[in-house]
Amino acid sequence: MLESTVAAIRPLDEAAMAAARELQGRLTKPAGSLGALEPLSVRLAGLADACPPPLPEPAAVAIFAGDHGVHAQGVTPWPQEVTAQMIANFLAGGAVVNAFARQAGASVTVVDVGVATPIPGAESADPAGPRLVSANVRAGTRDMTVTAALTRDEARTAVETGIRVAGELIDAGAGILLTGDMGIGNTTPSATLIAAFSGVDAEAATGRGTGVDDETYARKVAVVRAALARHEPDPADPLGVLATVGGLEHAALTGLILGAAARRVPVLLDGVIAVSAAVAAAAFAPDAVGAMVAGHRSAEPGATAALRHLGLEPLIDLGLRLGEGTGALLALPVVTGAVRVLHEVATFDSAGVAEK
Amino acid sequence: MLESTVAAIRPLDEAAMAAARELQGRLTKPAGSLGALEPLSVRLAGLADACPPPLPEPAAVAIFAGDHGVHAQGVTPWPQEVTAQMIANFLAGGAVVNAFARQAGASVTVVDVGVATPIPGAESADPAGPRLVSANVRAGTRDMTVTAALTRDEARTAVETGIRVAGELIDAGAGILLTGDMGIGNTTPSATLIAAFSGVDAEAATGRGTGVDDETYARKVAVVRAALARHEPDPADPLGVLATVGGLEHAALTGLILGAAARRVPVLLDGVIAVSAAVAAAAFAPDAVGAMVAGHRSAEPGATAALRHLGLEPLIDLGLRLGEGTGALLALPVVTGAVRVLHEVATFDSAGVAEK
Repeated sequence: MLESTVAAIRPLDEAAMAAARELQGRLTKPAGSLGALEPLSVRLAGLADACPPPLPEPAAVAIFAGDHGVHAQGVTPWPQEVTAQMIANFLAGGAVVNAFARQAGASVTVVDVGVATPIPGAESADPAGPRLVSANVRAGTRDMTVTAALTRDEARTAVETGIRVAGELIDAGAGILLTGDMGIGNTTPSATLIAAFSGVDAEAATGRGTGVDDETYARKVAVVRAALARHEPDPADPLGVLATVGGLEHAALTGLILGAAARRVPVLLDGVIAVSAAVAAAAFAPDAVGAMVAGHRSAEPGATAALRHLGLEPLIDLGLRLGEGTGALLALPVVTGAVRVLHEVATFDSAGVAEK
Repeated sequence: MLESTVAAIRPLDEAAMAAARELQGRLTKPAGSLGALEPLSVRLAGLADACPPPLPEPAAVAIFAGDHGVHAQGVTPWPQEVTAQMIANFLAGGAVVNAFARQAGASVTVVDVGVATPIPGAESADPAGPRLVSANVRAGTRDMTVTAALTRDEARTAVETGIRVAGELIDAGAGILLTGDMGIGNTTPSATLIAAFSGVDAEAATGRGTGVDDETYARKVAVVRAALARHEPDPADPLGVLATVGGLEHAALTGLILGAAARRVPVLLDGVIAVSAAVAAAAFAPDAVGAMVAGHRSAEPGATAALRHLGLEPLIDLGLRLGEGTGALLALPVVTGAVRVLHEVATFDSAGVAEK
């Protein structure tokens, strides 16, 4: 499934992009006055092979959750059980991602790809609320400073879970997928993936996650450096990189992105976990970048390194570092607005407005 | 009416802000992880004298339109009639502001405070569409390089029109006001106002508006410089500044902002025309800044100078330079989301999530 998905990913359609550029020039506004929204609308036309491209509606957030063996190295002050507790919070509708999803009219699907502890109250969750997909590959990764985080088979299963979830959401009608994540400790494998794929130094890729102190930060950088030294991950073998230094939610997000790109549906990236998966997806299929929209610039420095590696400019830059899909949800109206302009705005001709 | 409105503007409420800060610290997310949204929610609590503050709904965009005598100086390649033609486009629902307002569920009110030419088809506009308020003070300003753009009485009438529109929209239920503008040539008085109030140089305040060429840009800077030299506007006399070097839509927007601040309703600023009115409003009443939210960073350099003068950071920075209220509308979901978090997100205690 991974190989056929990668094989299905094609470049953006040049004719649809040319049509969108031409249409932008006839709409009742000065040329270029919508800034970054204009090239975004052009790119989405290329992805859809159509001008105008369909409105990116409805939106579906997929939150992939997993735990991390590297938690044992003291890379975060949060207990591992918080991963499962926050999933319960998502299912009850009480997290920030739920509030933002309600506002944006987006559905929320939580996918357990590797949570280590039981999810409190999962059986009694509101059936009208967010859906929980149980696809646990293993109860958290292994400690990557000691051994490979995952076997290649485990990594592949997680990637294919992401591809499957993308397909199901698109089959159910989603016009855009938004990446979400939950996993205590997951900014550490994110930094390691970004360093492995982009070549930036461990320190440049590593941030303070939930807000760790200087001592924990130094330990985190040392852990990233140790993992890179132990596994010498080869960016030409993205599955190997995901297996040795990734996380289950990272692998699944990589699959979600590949699955969306193969189906020509845009995928709106959240923060540093999402963009670390995006660099993995681009290593599998460079043309997958055409389906990616960078939602926001996470406060994590690795996110900026990854976005530079991908050649993407984020839509929102508000110092967010929460994850869950929150930054992507805040950016969603910008994406929808960019496409809506092509559908609804009058041309100079049709509106009887003079040109300069 | 101007004096009583200014007198009604009070500082933000410290107790409500303290309550919002305390609540932010108990919600299920790492402290500070919502970046700029957290201080924004605190400020809106202070404005509402309540924690949580009401959701900023429904939203109302007020587009003030006027023409400019300085158009005769060749500061723009667009014919003056485009102001009236674009109003017709607004009333027909065909402009970008209409598309974004529909998406955001915001109403659109167009206020003619100084259009110089007849508005095509105004009598046959769709009664279910945007409302047109006719409050024309005069058919465009005078050329400020030759004489004062407005008399003090004309400027006051325009300011009070803005105050009146703010009151009417708030009385009709608006929870947030968004500034919009239309006026061919209006980035020139905007630059002049920003230079006059903030003290930056004419060149630093002046941009390329709709995208003028080098020659027109040089002429525009010279016009701003000449207007400043002729009138020597005194920032301690904001009505005098608006009269000598402002525009009718600038004066009305100043009133809209003052009216919103006096009623403790947030006002979401669009681009360079809005922020030039905002610096005027701050000169009338420094506490009015508490009611202002900077929607986006316009590509116009004067906008950045004005935001710095006001001490405001914009929410969106996407190179927009269209005006109409489009940048404010794109930022609206961020403002709503910031407040929604205080209403809907569970606390660590209530959700049974462990803290670090």
